[in-house]
Amino acid sequence: MSDETWLRTSIATSTADSITVRDRDLAGELMGRVSFTELTFLLVAGRRATAEETRLLDAVLVSLADHGLTPTVLAARLTYTGAPESLQGAVAAGLLGAGTVFLGVVEDTATFLAAILEDTDATDEAALRRAAEAAVSARTKEGRRVPGLGHPIHKTEDPRTPRMYAIADETGLLGPHLRLLRLVAKAHAAATGKTLPINGAGVAGAALADLGFPPALMRGFALVARTAGIVGHLAEEMAQPLGMPLYQEVDRRAVYEPGEDSKS
Amino acid sequence: MSDETWLRTSIATSTADSITVRDRDLAGELMGRVSFTELTFLLVAGRRATAEETRLLDAVLVSLADHGLTPTVLAARLTYTGAPESLQGAVAAGLLGAGTVFLGVVEDTATFLAAILEDTDATDEAALRRAAEAAVSARTKEGRRVPGLGHPIHKTEDPRTPRMYAIADETGLLGPHLRLLRLVAKAHAAATGKTLPINGAGVAGAALADLGFPPALMRGFALVARTAGIVGHLAEEMAQPLGMPLYQEVDRRAVYEPGEDSKS
Amino acid sequence: MSDETWLRTSIATSTADSITVRDRDLAGELMGRVSFTELTFLLVAGRRATAEETRLLDAVLVSLADHGLTPTVLAARLTYTGAPESLQGAVAAGLLGAGTVFLGVVEDTATFLAAILEDTDATDEAALRRAAEAAVSARTKEGRRVPGLGHPIHKTEDPRTPRMYAIADETGLLGPHLRLLRLVAKAHAAATGKTLPINGAGVAGAALADLGFPPALMRGFALVARTAGIVGHLAEEMAQPLGMPLYQEVDRRAVYEPGEDSKS
Amino acid sequence: MSDETWLRTSIATSTADSITVRDRDLAGELMGRVSFTELTFLLVAGRRATAEETRLLDAVLVSLADHGLTPTVLAARLTYTGAPESLQGAVAAGLLGAGTVFLGVVEDTATFLAAILEDTDATDEAALRRAAEAAVSARTKEGRRVPGLGHPIHKTEDPRTPRMYAIADETGLLGPHLRLLRLVAKAHAAATGKTLPINGAGVAGAALADLGFPPALMRGFALVARTAGIVGHLAEEMAQPLGMPLYQEVDRRAVYEPGEDSKS
Repeated sequence: MSDETWLRTSIATSTADSITVRDRDLAGELMGRVSFTELTFLLVAGRRATAEETRLLDAVLVSLADHGLTPTVLAARLTYTGAPESLQGAVAAGLLGAGTVFLGVVEDTATFLAAILEDTDATDEAALRRAAEAAVSARTKEGRRVPGLGHPIHKTEDPRTPRMYAIADETGLLGPHLRLLRLVAKAHAAATGKTLPINGAGVAGAALADLGFPPALMRGFALVARTAGIVGHLAEEMAQPLGMPLYQEVDRRAVYEPGEDSKS
Repeated sequence: MSDETWLRTSIATSTADSITVRDRDLAGELMGRVSFTELTFLLVAGRRATAEETRLLDAVLVSLADHGLTPTVLAARLTYTGAPESLQGAVAAGLLGAGTVFLGVVEDTATFLAAILEDTDATDEAALRRAAEAAVSARTKEGRRVPGLGHPIHKTEDPRTPRMYAIADETGLLGPHLRLLRLVAKAHAAATGKTLPINGAGVAGAALADLGFPPALMRGFALVARTAGIVGHLAEEMAQPLGMPLYQEVDRRAVYEPGEDSKS
Repeated sequence: MSDETWLRTSIATSTADSITVRDRDLAGELMGRVSFTELTFLLVAGRRATAEETRLLDAVLVSLADHGLTPTVLAARLTYTGAPESLQGAVAAGLLGAGTVFLGVVEDTATFLAAILEDTDATDEAALRRAAEAAVSARTKEGRRVPGLGHPIHKTEDPRTPRMYAIADETGLLGPHLRLLRLVAKAHAAATGKTLPINGAGVAGAALADLGFPPALMRGFALVARTAGIVGHLAEEMAQPLGMPLYQEVDRRAVYEPGEDSKS
Repeated sequence: MSDETWLRTSIATSTADSITVRDRDLAGELMGRVSFTELTFLLVAGRRATAEETRLLDAVLVSLADHGLTPTVLAARLTYTGAPESLQGAVAAGLLGAGTVFLGVVEDTATFLAAILEDTDATDEAALRRAAEAAVSARTKEGRRVPGLGHPIHKTEDPRTPRMYAIADETGLLGPHLRLLRLVAKAHAAATGKTLPINGAGVAGAALADLGFPPALMRGFALVARTAGIVGHLAEEMAQPLGMPLYQEVDRRAVYEPGEDSKS
């Protein structure tokens, strides 16, 4: 490794008598002094969160952690059924479904909002409103959905949304992305005559953007949150298995359909 | 699904206008009111943590989150090199190495301590000391290592250990497992003449046991903690890639050795 | 990398105009000349398989590839539901359930047979029979199941078993592990009065052992075989999704049970 | 499950005395009669391959299986270092890096070729040439690379390419995608004055397209092939570990850089 400029990190290091994480002494400055959420912020952003930022990030993580027996939770529990010796395998299987369909909304919303904000003075409420209307109009003309709006279950209001706005407001962190998202929802209702609620994934994306995180990293926070949810489900699976009876039910009722191919 | 007693969960559920996690209203009772660590405790244990338990669990999570460029972090970063479109894949790859070699110590220590405590009155310090001595003696006679002792880098003292004991003491959570582990370390030093420090994984296992978690679930907390560390590393990898140059370095220096098999 | 004796491999290497796999020129000696099964044998064993060995290994891989909507297949399909952008994630999720519960039998059977063969002259049929009887007796006395016997669906005979024995016989590869497994099944029937069939996983383990593979590697062949099955299921999932309706069905019928914990 | 039209599969099913895979009796019609490659084709395509198709698919699988110590292989070996109890975890970690960067070329090439063929009469060689020239010209004008051309190591010729063409020719399977890819390479050289070789991933994509597989499934074949390569590397890792010394080397030489953030 003649030229080692690439072999460097600013995340963590250790010596015989110390461990350093993001320039802080792990034992003396972090353990017992910061919450795990503060540590997560520090690890990803490379700086300490303020108390207000921590409160908002906590709300985001709490909002994303678990929603019951989702496809990813079912995948984790079915994986545990076959490989109970490897809790990490079941958790990993659960995280692997955290892709574009469910979690994509978080970053799609943030990306959509950021593109609007690039060309708009966010301190000018009227300009922001016009930009929201233009972006919604352009999007719906293309026949594309506006990200962050609508939910299959919470058709009128996603309960997480007003709560997240209230927390952002209380903490003084109601930033341009969160404000713009509300204008986008209004513009969408005006343009289409159909009021769609801001969904929990969308508001999480806007909040993470106002906390300063780029879209490409947002899924990372969702993954931290989901890991806790999956571990909770696996704790339940150990005591009260659902994977095996689910498989047996599927096996009992599945219909085998011969293919169209005549045998050769 | 004629008999659906198996298709039930106590983790989470939702209706059109509410989401419930472990019997609490997600928006009203959890978001903005509990930290992510409190939510994690609630998800896994099914009950609210006290402030003291939260503080100790935070210390455990913070202590386990990251230790720099470990094998699992390298696996995550190398996976990101090939599949940057799938952050969840890189995180999952990183978690998959969280197996018996590195994280096994957490649960092995807890299991070892629990076995001793099963037959011992933990309130009787002298009895506890004798039980520690007997268990260490039995273990070393079998030629097996006592779990939770010794560290390849922190040869004299693992800096996390005294800190974790101090936090447990401050929070009134210095329970039987943590107390016993200290007696085990002393008994080991007395029996072998070699003083090995209690390592960070061992003290985490004892602390999680005193928090009431069974060994089979402990890896779950480590996985939550590690996910944050891995996401931090992937944030760095995006800005300053290490995976590709590491591969190139390996490729450049690796020696291909012909096999012993003569060609057939 | 001062001392690079560790940075070496005998698997593959390449130069500007050639690729070498296990000492063979990939383009000139392998592509178009060996089947993928022969390549798999070569990669893992480091030597070319004979035509007979290839035929038996093909039969093992074919026997293990797919059994319909198993827990691991369901996990793969549910993962695809959330992350269709990452076929590798869905396949990986499917493989992660290939653990001790379902695939463990392959290596458990091989390990059980190998332990008996260690102390027995396999060419002496009578000695082999006595060893089988003793091992079965010891195992059942301990209250443990004899690995490789019994199947939840194929209660009388697993159709793969007589076929595998016929192929092993035809290819002259009916080795000590396969012969012993048959004696083990007979000894078990005699000792317990209950005739259990040799199952497909058990006969695969015995065949792989007779092909010279150690138990620790056997799961690897099962993983190669399963990958093909999972890809087949994902091809079907793309055309005719099962993951989303399965989740919706679970969501619709799952019962949320409040926990025992009174709120705090 | 009132309406179960969704709970059906054409892949496999079993009864007490039979297992059916794609309408064939597993024991009687597949084991001992088809190679694993034929089974893979059957599982994914839903029909039997001809002998010629099998030979070409074998060549594709053989060509993709292994290329030495790639990032994905390193990830698999480093994962095994931490979790040797879970071979499936190490294999899964290795597959997770099989994403857009390395394997994307297979499907990108097929997609690029298919788009050209949609509007071109493939039996008219001159028309095909003109279409290739137009597509290359359009692509390079956009400043985008033509997929399937160029290789970091095989700068003049990828040895797999002429071999694959020879096998396709011998088997009568030199279809429109493979023929077009050669014209694309020529058009690129003429347009840019720079001769780039058709790479192994590109030729694999064209061959899989000529075998009738859609781009979205191609990665699946690469995953089957890679699984064999990874298992080969893990067999070597068990005997001669590379993961731990690689980590130790990285740990020894990595430089910790304090962040820009002044402590807060």
